[in-house]
Amino acid sequence: MPMAEVSRERFVSWFGELAAIGRSDSGWNRVAWTSLEAEARAWFSGTAAGIGLEVRQDGAGTLWAVTPDADDGPWICAGSHLDTQPDGGAYDGALGVVSALEAAAALLESGLPRRHPLAVVAFVDEEGARFRTPTFASLAITGGLDIDHVLEVMGDAPAIYGVTRQSLANSRSQLDRVRAFLEVHVEQGRALAGRELTLGIADVLAPRQRWRVEFAGEANHAGTTSMADRRDALLPAARFVLAVDEVARSRDGAVGTVGRVEVQPGSTNSVPGHVAVSLDVRALAVDTLDGMVAELRDRFPEATFGRESSNDGARFDPVLRASLADAAAARGVTAGDLPSYAGHDAGILAPHVPSAMVFVRNPSGISHAPAESASDDDCLAAAQVLTDALAAALLSD
Amino acid sequence: MPMAEVSRERFVSWFGELAAIGRSDSGWNRVAWTSLEAEARAWFSGTAAGIGLEVRQDGAGTLWAVTPDADDGPWICAGSHLDTQPDGGAYDGALGVVSALEAAAALLESGLPRRHPLAVVAFVDEEGARFRTPTFASLAITGGLDIDHVLEVMGDAPAIYGVTRQSLANSRSQLDRVRAFLEVHVEQGRALAGRELTLGIADVLAPRQRWRVEFAGEANHAGTTSMADRRDALLPAARFVLAVDEVARSRDGAVGTVGRVEVQPGSTNSVPGHVAVSLDVRALAVDTLDGMVAELRDRFPEATFGRESSNDGARFDPVLRASLADAAAARGVTAGDLPSYAGHDAGILAPHVPSAMVFVRNPSGISHAPAESASDDDCLAAAQVLTDALAAALLSD
Repeated sequence: MPMAEVSRERFVSWFGELAAIGRSDSGWNRVAWTSLEAEARAWFSGTAAGIGLEVRQDGAGTLWAVTPDADDGPWICAGSHLDTQPDGGAYDGALGVVSALEAAAALLESGLPRRHPLAVVAFVDEEGARFRTPTFASLAITGGLDIDHVLEVMGDAPAIYGVTRQSLANSRSQLDRVRAFLEVHVEQGRALAGRELTLGIADVLAPRQRWRVEFAGEANHAGTTSMADRRDALLPAARFVLAVDEVARSRDGAVGTVGRVEVQPGSTNSVPGHVAVSLDVRALAVDTLDGMVAELRDRFPEATFGRESSNDGARFDPVLRASLADAAAARGVTAGDLPSYAGHDAGILAPHVPSAMVFVRNPSGISHAPAESASDDDCLAAAQVLTDALAAALLSD
Repeated sequence: MPMAEVSRERFVSWFGELAAIGRSDSGWNRVAWTSLEAEARAWFSGTAAGIGLEVRQDGAGTLWAVTPDADDGPWICAGSHLDTQPDGGAYDGALGVVSALEAAAALLESGLPRRHPLAVVAFVDEEGARFRTPTFASLAITGGLDIDHVLEVMGDAPAIYGVTRQSLANSRSQLDRVRAFLEVHVEQGRALAGRELTLGIADVLAPRQRWRVEFAGEANHAGTTSMADRRDALLPAARFVLAVDEVARSRDGAVGTVGRVEVQPGSTNSVPGHVAVSLDVRALAVDTLDGMVAELRDRFPEATFGRESSNDGARFDPVLRASLADAAAARGVTAGDLPSYAGHDAGILAPHVPSAMVFVRNPSGISHAPAESASDDDCLAAAQVLTDALAAALLSD
């Protein structure tokens, strides 16, 4: 069976060109809706045009580089995003975009047959770093974006790419163009290194809940209020922090985090009268999450729990997953199932169109910082597996 | 033996006049170095002049209302401060100033003999609410004020009372004028009510230490970092909060408070990488304090302890204390020893000149808020006991 072969030279060259944009001593700074993301978009458009793709922009600002048969039917798509966190890493987003460009180049030069158009995607503002609007573009096309809210917080920023209220509303029709979506992404933890695997094939996007939990006491003078007369709100809050850790550790594949603590009055000289903490819980199933929160509510009946957000997660497409696993096996690349615990454009699309993700081993485990890493060999292996899975999808009915 | 008798009518009238200054729906607002404290100072000067006292201002801005024989030798002094916390209570400071004015009026009209001048004192900026400069004026005259620091943080504020760098330096000579100092103050906890006592006679100013305690971990993604891979700095910090409570409760008369918590990065989505907390400990003896801190350091060897301030406390004058206790007994007022756990001008003066404090029962236990309270009967009893103790001191060798 004929195959399309990725080019290490071309891949490394393209990755280097993109990595040169927004690079500084403290990390990569292609924050969305800034001139550095715009520069990366220009690089993307030029590179895609250079391999014969036609670049279209949807109403949310996402760039879709499509084969000339774009209007013959829905597209087999691959890609990721060009924006980074402030002082972020070189791989997050960039690896998925360059892998998809490389796959498209390899497929187009291979002359392999296909039944569907092929598109390389560069989503805008996946990180949400500037306005707390993560997965902006995939939410827009799947109808999950609160347009009034984002336009209020973003001010004039969307205009940099010509995005308006009307174009955002219109962007939903773009979803009809997507037959499937595959995303390569650097791993954001150290699970693959621990399991001695090169690639992880995402099986589920972990469900997630965010809560604000509040503890009431009585603010008082830290000197003149005897221990017996105190109602210190920080004591139950401290027990809660420890309980969250216990509750998460007692469940396979669950994580629980208290990342913010707000103490009132918040002075050295005052017994805390009110404490609010954030609670972020993720697990492989919604039932597990609900059980964690129920146990915490049981153990802290005096606390006030306010749910801030909730995401029931998603299952990635079994056909695409099998195709990726087959490709890895055929290429001699070690791969295994891996849940995704963070938001990604592929996770937003998964409930709507067949979607899949490939994670590339990151030995540092660091994410959103310059220490994020992946070897060239591992990145090339991912690009090759992506290429082979795209080739199969392009031939499917 | 002839006595001087306080006047309930005059006391209540004066207290009402002072309480009308800076009163609002949310509390009393005579913050130091503002026009409302200045208005209270004008009221004080007028009232003192009305009973035949001559008002002098020292180099730190404190007002000393002295009998005409002011230059015959050091003064027997009583008073407190006129400033309040923002939205503070009616009694803190004001009660001590009005009690001293009432005692002076009663003593002067009694014609009782005296060997020393008598002074009523209104210290400036005891609360330190605006610039974190508590007991500003008593520190100035005892040489404990960091003049460079306060002038830097206070800007032009001291100029409102004509206070300058030179006048602050000169203010130290004022201490030579003070033969003794007595201060009446509303209680800042509920100990007297619990012991069914009207008055508390301060025996010690509790030693105090303030520390900044830091815990290091590794900041990471709250979703993609497994529980096993985490080094969450908030977990030891939470155990520390609980340990402080235990360590304080296990020692008689000790208090320990964590009032501030700073979490880095401090986002819902991040495992805490660094946590700093404040530690405030007070006890009846320095050894107890040292033992508390040593136990905490033992239990948290991984934490970094930085001492921010330390005060070894003070013992109040035994002769003045006995005189106050005798006066209470003679007047049928219930009184007992009571340690002071908060800073006061009398506590600053105590290591330098004979000083004493009388606390008045505060059934609410609330301090620095409008709910602070004391009955007229209890306030009058304190003013009478102060008057009698001053009469004795004025006759002493």
